[in-house]
Amino acid sequence: MQLTTLADLEQAQQRLQGLARHTPLLPLALPELGTEQVYLKPESLQPIGSFKIRGAGNRIMALTDSERARGVLAYSSGNHAQGVAYAARQLGLKATIIMPTNAPQVKIEATRALGAEVILYDPAHEKREAVAARLLAGAAEPPVLVPPFDDAYVIAGQGTVGLEIFQDLPSVELVLTPVGGGGLLGGVAAALKLLKPSVKVIGVEPELAADAQASLRAGKVVEWAAADTNRTLADGVRTLAVSELTFAHIQQYADDIVTVTEAELRAAARRLLLEARLVVEPTAALPLAALLRHRASLPRSQHTVLVLTGGNADPATLIELLQG
Amino acid sequence: MQLTTLADLEQAQQRLQGLARHTPLLPLALPELGTEQVYLKPESLQPIGSFKIRGAGNRIMALTDSERARGVLAYSSGNHAQGVAYAARQLGLKATIIMPTNAPQVKIEATRALGAEVILYDPAHEKREAVAARLLAGAAEPPVLVPPFDDAYVIAGQGTVGLEIFQDLPSVELVLTPVGGGGLLGGVAAALKLLKPSVKVIGVEPELAADAQASLRAGKVVEWAAADTNRTLADGVRTLAVSELTFAHIQQYADDIVTVTEAELRAAARRLLLEARLVVEPTAALPLAALLRHRASLPRSQHTVLVLTGGNADPATLIELLQG
Repeated sequence: MQLTTLADLEQAQQRLQGLARHTPLLPLALPELGTEQVYLKPESLQPIGSFKIRGAGNRIMALTDSERARGVLAYSSGNHAQGVAYAARQLGLKATIIMPTNAPQVKIEATRALGAEVILYDPAHEKREAVAARLLAGAAEPPVLVPPFDDAYVIAGQGTVGLEIFQDLPSVELVLTPVGGGGLLGGVAAALKLLKPSVKVIGVEPELAADAQASLRAGKVVEWAAADTNRTLADGVRTLAVSELTFAHIQQYADDIVTVTEAELRAAARRLLLEARLVVEPTAALPLAALLRHRASLPRSQHTVLVLTGGNADPATLIELLQG
Repeated sequence: MQLTTLADLEQAQQRLQGLARHTPLLPLALPELGTEQVYLKPESLQPIGSFKIRGAGNRIMALTDSERARGVLAYSSGNHAQGVAYAARQLGLKATIIMPTNAPQVKIEATRALGAEVILYDPAHEKREAVAARLLAGAAEPPVLVPPFDDAYVIAGQGTVGLEIFQDLPSVELVLTPVGGGGLLGGVAAALKLLKPSVKVIGVEPELAADAQASLRAGKVVEWAAADTNRTLADGVRTLAVSELTFAHIQQYADDIVTVTEAELRAAARRLLLEARLVVEPTAALPLAALLRHRASLPRSQHTVLVLTGGNADPATLIELLQG
């Protein structure tokens, strides 16, 4: 299996100029950790409020002219949909997004506001992959599917987070990042290890959706049931399983995957809101929760970066987090 | 009266290196404004969560060795206290902060956590200036008072916000910033006009605390009653009056001061939370509220910057804003 290369990552960074933001590293004061300096990589400050603009953007920017003419297709009820719609609009391409009828109305509206055509399906009667397959089969000029993580361009795009971390903080020793489908962890770990092999890169999952940790322990992709992964508040990592391609990156480049409880996640999210003053979605608090829980057993580090994946939380969730 | 010079401002920027952050400009999508590009200057991302680190930091960094040995004194229940305490700690100086007994316990704790000695007084029986005067008179080696705005170093320090705006966006045409004591508006307006005279700089106040607008209209400093200014949710601009020194800067360099209603302020704060994904204190939303309300009558601009003063809001206020 072909893993991402430094050339792939650097090309992705070139393609994303003007589309995705080079987000700053923001120091976070954590006196309980002594002299360890901790920085946040706030992907919540991307135009669409999450890192997903990078992977979707890299895939779309790499399309040939004839592919561009066909437009793009994605199925997602979350941040990936916004990433695809935003990147397509910037390039003047047609975007079609398949979303479940039970998706929050606000997300459907937001995707439409980005100029995408939204096709709704009833998740009780159909799978989104089947809807996509039907659409692709029925079209004379079928749009190009942009997968949320199982794609080399998407992995390289998310990996530009790792490139930027190294460019801005060459002394980095430890990076923690959430893991859902594995595109972000795989890409970031590859980027950092290719640039500086001594860096440790750790994935973080909720205990309630620890399929990627189970996969790493088993040495093969393990799938969890939706009924299980849906229990976590961290909706960005409810993915049932990593893909073979993202798993290959994780096995090769990530050092470990650790888990946190829902209570730890909520406490960390609240601290990010009130101490870092950043609006975060619950998923984005996984790395801070892990650092605070596992500090003793994590690799030693004086320069640690937490990837803050996104800030698309609805007001009710934010209120719940603020109430503590 | 001696107004701040470009040399003062550039010296301030030098002094603040390593202490205050050069905050980024973050684009904010406002489709209702057509082609006008709007950027936020998020001072909420400063170490203490507000621009006050700049003015306090510049004053403290400019102290002589013998002044440093005496330590610093400030009276404030808000962001200025944090700025003085933080800057003093970074330099290893003793800081004393005079706070009212009715200040929120969380702010008292936060100031103590920054290493400052907090002296409480009963605002029903004493004025903070009197407490400070007593402390200064009684000390063999009296600490140096760091005023919140009525000071040339403080004005130059806040003015570095303007320097950074021009450095990062030379095409800037319009800047909106809250006005309380006038240090920020005076400093930012001076910096921008000295660098690029065509830039328009507008101050923003709540209708309920419009003493600075009244002063500008009257051509002299006008004071409002605390019972009036305390009505606004924007606690950062409840100051009763600008000072003669800040007023001189505003008269010389600011183009106008406009006002907004409390409802406009709340709506703008909610948009910043949910669309810019930044935790803001109500005061920080004044410029966005003004841009949305007064766009037709404000100077034309294709590149507009809104100074987002700080992000130190308590959870109850944030919940109220999120509930809309």
